[in-house]
This record gives sequence, structure tokens and C-alpha cells, in this order.
Amino acid sequence: MEIIHSIKELQQKLDRNERAGRTVGLVPTMGFLHEGHLALAKQAKKQNDTVVMSIFVNPAQFGPEEDFESYPRDIDRDAKLAESAGVDYLFIPSVEEMYPTDGGIRILPGAQATALCGASRPGHFDGVLKVVLKLFNIVDPDRSYFGMKDAQQLAIIETFVRDFNLRTNIVRVPTVREEDGLAKSSRNVNLSETERQEAPAIRQALELGAELFAEGKPAGEIEEKVAAYITGNSTGRIDYVSLLSYPELTEYDPSSEEAILACAVHFEKTRLIDNIILK
Amino acid sequence: MEIIHSIKELQQKLDRNERAGRTVGLVPTMGFLHEGHLALAKQAKKQNDTVVMSIFVNPAQFGPEEDFESYPRDIDRDAKLAESAGVDYLFIPSVEEMYPTDGGIRILPGAQATALCGASRPGHFDGVLKVVLKLFNIVDPDRSYFGMKDAQQLAIIETFVRDFNLRTNIVRVPTVREEDGLAKSSRNVNLSETERQEAPAIRQALELGAELFAEGKPAGEIEEKVAAYITGNSTGRIDYVSLLSYPELTEYDPSSEEAILACAVHFEKTRLIDNIILK
Repeated sequence: MEIIHSIKELQQKLDRNERAGRTVGLVPTMGFLHEGHLALAKQAKKQNDTVVMSIFVNPAQFGPEEDFESYPRDIDRDAKLAESAGVDYLFIPSVEEMYPTDGGIRILPGAQATALCGASRPGHFDGVLKVVLKLFNIVDPDRSYFGMKDAQQLAIIETFVRDFNLRTNIVRVPTVREEDGLAKSSRNVNLSETERQEAPAIRQALELGAELFAEGKPAGEIEEKVAAYITGNSTGRIDYVSLLSYPELTEYDPSSEEAILACAVHFEKTRLIDNIILK
Repeated sequence: MEIIHSIKELQQKLDRNERAGRTVGLVPTMGFLHEGHLALAKQAKKQNDTVVMSIFVNPAQFGPEEDFESYPRDIDRDAKLAESAGVDYLFIPSVEEMYPTDGGIRILPGAQATALCGASRPGHFDGVLKVVLKLFNIVDPDRSYFGMKDAQQLAIIETFVRDFNLRTNIVRVPTVREEDGLAKSSRNVNLSETERQEAPAIRQALELGAELFAEGKPAGEIEEKVAAYITGNSTGRIDYVSLLSYPELTEYDPSSEEAILACAVHFEKTRLIDNIILK
């Protein structure tokens, strides 16, 4: 595995004419890798000749009050894990390398970004689309791998690819969980011991919601009971619990192909998200 | 030359693996070709193995009161001219082919779009960036050719390419003019006979401005005299006359590398633009 910090160097390695006939898979991450990221890389390795993983804690997708500074980082450990998962090029650009200039052009998501995390993280998905477009242009991947834990991000990126003919195929990868059901997240390390013990209540609540959905209960009742389960079984404060059509992220319509039951929960220093797809 | 209407078919022709080692030049146009467009195609032919010209009157870059419906079209004539200029693939998608879905994602230019035409054509450059990003993704051109007549468009596209690592090199091509100095434009056919005789005053005024600039006159005085020359020598109404730094399109700063003196003039049914770059 090669570690690369420069856009130009990475582009030389992946040059269109050099790679003819060879496929490239991209795994964009913010580092502090866990098994969720490694599942992305392993799937990319199965489906492509070359795997590029990026590690970039993207300031453009953090709000001024958010945890950009305290977002956990451990590049040495990440490099070992990435290599073990089959990554060929680990791309670790600096903020200056990614954003040397700013002519003020912004990519604004549509209505999909007003629901769920978009409501409490204004501008977050602008920053996501910005870095994703840059990474797609730098790497020119045949396939790009995103985890279902960030289901709203995935839905918005799929829309971007579809509407703007972006030259990559998006591959959805299922959320990887701890044994007790908590979704793997780089932010889990910021939970206190007690919070860590309580956090699986999120997954339990979503499973309860899935049962209620299967019984045909209305969205409002499901959201209420899921929220009540979480607050009844943890010290977490609810940011949102929402049942919506997926990937449109509009009010749940029983005629839509899929639905998502998603939530965000604040613990003292950590905001966790999780979701379950319902059919 | 092949005429292609389908995105998928064009992408198959230009497939990365098939074209290894061969370069592709893109000439995006709205059709009704004139010698300005042909100059773009000829330069593309000199510098690339394959030339793609697109003809697409892009509704996204016209305002509700603008001339989308009356914009001149003549595909048969365009096809002959394109072939004569060395175009290999003439890509003519329908509006439905280009915009089959709309998830509401928008690309908003920065401060560069508030000057000049941006002030009187709100949303125009959003539509330009949208179609340009789509065309770049569909064609994946090594080089893309834009005329200096649309100098603001060119400056904004150059910023987009720079800040988002778009995978193409932008080539600036000088404005082609009629013998009397009027910049070639598809819209010139909509001028009345009298207006057509008056229209070279625009170029004469810009040349007068360039002389005043060389004499060190201040921006305000130059703009005033250029406007007065146009209104004194034609029935045109001034939309703007502006001297700005280029490509920043901010207030003229003598320390900037280049400046632009640009104007837009309304005739009865036609709005014409022109500019001159000053150093």
C-alpha cells in the first residue's frame, strides 16, 4: 500500500491511459477507521483491481459549533488497518491540498437535505457534496463505496450522481455493528462508559419501530414510541426520530418502494445516528 | 461525423478503456453555429484526436422573460458546418435526455456571478454550471473550448474547474468578429437592418475604452465614455459597461494581472454582449 498526500501524485498513479482496462474503487472516509470502513474497503477490493481509500476530515461539512477539532484521528493505526483490508492507495491530503483556493462556488442539495440531519446541521451536505465531487474528479473511480449508516448522505450522493451524470457507480454497503447492536462509528470512542452501555438502546428502539411498521402502525405513532424507548432506556436526548420515504426523504408514502426510520441522539459529548430501512 | 442524440451512446463511443492514448476535445454550444463556434472546433481539432461538439439550447440558463423559445435553431445547417470544421461527434440531446430527473441539487457560483451579466440575468450562471458539469461528466474531455466573447462564463467555469478538480483543461479562444468589428453571435440574426448597421459601435466604444485605459484614465471615466459612445452612435440601451479585474470580476485593481472592459447592450429584440481584455 502506498500513502499519498498530493492530488497530483495520486492522479498520475490513476491516469486514464495507464489504467486502461483496470477498474478503480474509491472508499471516502474521515479516518479513525473501524470495521464499517473496512467492510467498504473489502467490498471495493472484491469488485475492483485497485482500491483507493481517502482519509480527510473535511472542514466544509462541520458547522462552527461542531466537533471538527475533536474529531478522533489516528493515521498510523488507520494505515495498518487500511493495508489489512486491501487498500492500494491511501490518500491523505491536507486541508490546504484540498482547498487551496475558494472562488465561492457552492453545491446546494435539494429537499432531501432539509430532513433528518440536514435540519440540525445546516450546510453539512453542501460540504459533503463539495468534497465528494472533488474526490470523484481526483480519483475517477469506477465504483464508490458508502455505508448505509449515513443513509441521508448516501441518498443525496445518489441523486447527485444521477442528475449530474457523475462518472462513478455508487455502491451501498450495510452498516456494521458491535455485538450489542450499536452501529460502528468513529465517534463511539467519545462516549462515557455509562453512555456506551446505554447506546444500544438506539438500535433496539429502531427494531421496535420496524415491528410497529410491520404491524401497519402510522408513522407518527412509530416515531413517538421509538423516541420514548430511547429516552426511557438512556440518558440520550433525541435530535430527531423520523420515518420517511427512501431515498426521497419526503413524508412517508405507503406507495414508495422503501422507507427509512432514522434517528439522531445527543449524548454528553457525542451525537450518534442510526437507521433501519423498511420495505 | 456522427450525429448522436443519446448520452449512453456517446459515452460508449468515448469509453475510457477504448480511447486509451487518444485525446478528446469538447466544444459546448447552443447551436446556430457561426465562425466563432467553428474557430473553437478547429482549434480543438488541432489539439485532440477526437472532437465532440454539443448543441443544446439549455433551458436552465434562460430566465423566464428571456429568449429560450426564440433562440435561433438550424440543426441541418449546423451539422454541415460542424463537419466542415472537423467535428467527429455532434451531440444533440433533447431536454428530456439531459434533464430526465431533478432532485433539486444546484451549483451556485460565487461573487464572480454578481457582476456584469449576473446582475441582470439571475440564475443564468447556475444553469451554465449545471450543463457544463453534466457535459464534462458525459464526455470526459481532455480539453474544453470556450470563446472569450462570453468572458464572464469563461472566468466562472475556470474557477469551477480549479476549485473542484474537474478533469478537463479549459482553452480560451479569441472572439471572432465580422469585418466591421461586431462580435459574431447567434443572436445577431435578430437585429433589424438598422440595428445591424449600428451594432459595430459597441466594438468601437470598447476600443476607445482601451485607449483611455492605456492613458491611465480611471475606471469610472472610461465606463462613462464607453456608454456615451454607444448611446451616441446607436439606438441601443446600455445594460452595463464595466471595467473590472479579470478573471476575479471584482472592482478594478491596478495590481491585478488583467482587466476586462465589458458591456451588454439591448436592441429592440436582441441583447448583445462584448468585451476587451486589457493588460
